[in-house]
Amino acid sequence: MKAAFTEVARDGDARRGVVTTARGEFTTPRFMPVGTKGAVKHLTSADLESLGAQMILANTYHLMLRPGADTVAALGGIHRFADWNGHVLTDSGGYQVFSLSPKVDATGAVFKSTYDGSSHVLTPEKAVEVQALIGADIQMVLDVCPPSVADTGVVRRAVELTSQWAGRGRRAFLDHQDASGRQCQFGIVQGGTDDAMRAESANRIVEIGFDGYAVGGLSVGEDRSSMLHGLDSCMGILPGDQPRYFMGLGDPVGIVEAVARGVDMFDCVLPTRLARHGTVLTDTGRYNLKRAEFAASDDPIDPGWAESPAARWSRGYLRHLLSVGEPTAARIITLHNVGWLLRFMDRLADSISDGCFESFRMEVNETWS
Amino acid sequence: MKAAFTEVARDGDARRGVVTTARGEFTTPRFMPVGTKGAVKHLTSADLESLGAQMILANTYHLMLRPGADTVAALGGIHRFADWNGHVLTDSGGYQVFSLSPKVDATGAVFKSTYDGSSHVLTPEKAVEVQALIGADIQMVLDVCPPSVADTGVVRRAVELTSQWAGRGRRAFLDHQDASGRQCQFGIVQGGTDDAMRAESANRIVEIGFDGYAVGGLSVGEDRSSMLHGLDSCMGILPGDQPRYFMGLGDPVGIVEAVARGVDMFDCVLPTRLARHGTVLTDTGRYNLKRAEFAASDDPIDPGWAESPAARWSRGYLRHLLSVGEPTAARIITLHNVGWLLRFMDRLADSISDGCFESFRMEVNETWS
Repeated sequence: MKAAFTEVARDGDARRGVVTTARGEFTTPRFMPVGTKGAVKHLTSADLESLGAQMILANTYHLMLRPGADTVAALGGIHRFADWNGHVLTDSGGYQVFSLSPKVDATGAVFKSTYDGSSHVLTPEKAVEVQALIGADIQMVLDVCPPSVADTGVVRRAVELTSQWAGRGRRAFLDHQDASGRQCQFGIVQGGTDDAMRAESANRIVEIGFDGYAVGGLSVGEDRSSMLHGLDSCMGILPGDQPRYFMGLGDPVGIVEAVARGVDMFDCVLPTRLARHGTVLTDTGRYNLKRAEFAASDDPIDPGWAESPAARWSRGYLRHLLSVGEPTAARIITLHNVGWLLRFMDRLADSISDGCFESFRMEVNETWS
Repeated sequence: MKAAFTEVARDGDARRGVVTTARGEFTTPRFMPVGTKGAVKHLTSADLESLGAQMILANTYHLMLRPGADTVAALGGIHRFADWNGHVLTDSGGYQVFSLSPKVDATGAVFKSTYDGSSHVLTPEKAVEVQALIGADIQMVLDVCPPSVADTGVVRRAVELTSQWAGRGRRAFLDHQDASGRQCQFGIVQGGTDDAMRAESANRIVEIGFDGYAVGGLSVGEDRSSMLHGLDSCMGILPGDQPRYFMGLGDPVGIVEAVARGVDMFDCVLPTRLARHGTVLTDTGRYNLKRAEFAASDDPIDPGWAESPAARWSRGYLRHLLSVGEPTAARIITLHNVGWLLRFMDRLADSISDGCFESFRMEVNETWS
């Protein structure tokens, strides 16, 4: 079913809205914490509820290999599996598979499991079937994601194959009545940072017609201006009454710049991965708690955010736990970083409603650039 | 100050009570989860509050090396450090030090840090000073803990040195006005599994006079009947109006048998360590969640305990998280195991109040032996 986007407020091209699916509603701009293998690292679904997360992303590649899509289905699908009643989006598995240098032909991609070396095939049809078993609210079509630095010929071929696979994936989804009755399927635009190829890809994907649209193959190593250039080349083509999702982006400047161009949804491992390395997100930028200067600091993790879920523990305590490898440190900082980014999205949404998005955007650029 | 023990109920020698310290009260029989380096692994103080833990143990050896007792003191002492307002007991550091084969003479023990190989000295006086800086509610005197299998001569010497050190440690504590004004100090009985030496050690430690008494050097590898034999040899000597603490014991049968002999307090890494390996404690015994039979099980972690903090997630989900190494699994199972053991202690306490301790004891022995 189509993911309906209802605009609540707008400031320039930045928009605040509500997306409606079979499950219910989620608000945008929305950041999805990443639960790679069915859990956001160090957090439970109870934690995500208390953080007000609304929506998470789970990785098809990992879940299809362990515990297997059939097992997730047997355990009631991803929502019952993780006991999470908010929204879930599953990627197609393509991104991980392409990072493994698979054998690709027109049919699909053959890759080896990182778990046991066994051989697996991912095709557009298989991606639909696997994601139907996992049972997220939104599934992604299988695309071809070229490296950030790739010859024009490689990008060209990725755009072509992405379009062909999008057509096949869409037909497979619509033919799968159980999936199409309760899930949405998003298309993915490729085209590297080449204007013409991005626009062509966007047009061909929109022509096929999906329940929402994602921008893929960006934020994969290119610099920010190239990334935004690539985004600019296709955003105008994506329908305004459907959600737009920038895959794999999670830094504050990237998010605010993408929102300025009309993007609604984001996911990234950044806040959780940084947390495990001791890096803390705050309104005044990020810092690493492992630095010696914090050894005897009784200050809270983020003096600018008294309501942080980590506010009660001192920097000195957290630095100690990090330095001796206690998992409690990763947990506490993960709670903070995910909470901080969700609050950042709320502030972003408020700036749109309040008509001061441009000043928020400037502040974020100044703080984080 | 003396830790006053007030008896609330008794059934045979098993007793239920309240211990009063400068901080306030905790109830007994009491199990202390172990926060080795200032945190119970995978848990925060907020978790321990929600589990109703009342009291935790922290390890002097680890905290004196990282972040250092001075740093804990600079950060407000262990309670502010971990932001935990319940009770805290610190061991003396002796147990860890003796596991490192230190050079021991009448003065104290010289050992090397496991962190960086640097050389450190622990004396009875130093143990008092370090624990005063850490600032727990109860500190333990430095004792000499021989291996479970040791020649009579080694045990004899341990008893002798333990007594000498107890005298010095007690004087140092009483001379340390800040410590003795707000902390309690417990003595430790040694003597291996030898009747006469245990009794002698108990008599000499009680003669010195502490704020509470611990039985040390048991549950270190000997079989259960030897352990209980050792316990029997000294329990009658320990004053009834003060708390009695069995160090390092945490299995259900061991606890119930020690309570049957009048023990009030326990600590052990068992519930937390087992959790990290996937072993779950339940009323019908323990089981390992990694077993293949649980792969597609939608049953809760412990069908006999609907209120488990882990009840909402299925065995299949937890098994999956364990098998792919997600830290969320260790967290959820740790919450369950610690919660289960605290509830076990509550049930034990109720059985004493209800005059049915013997049937509870029999049930526990049947389930866990």
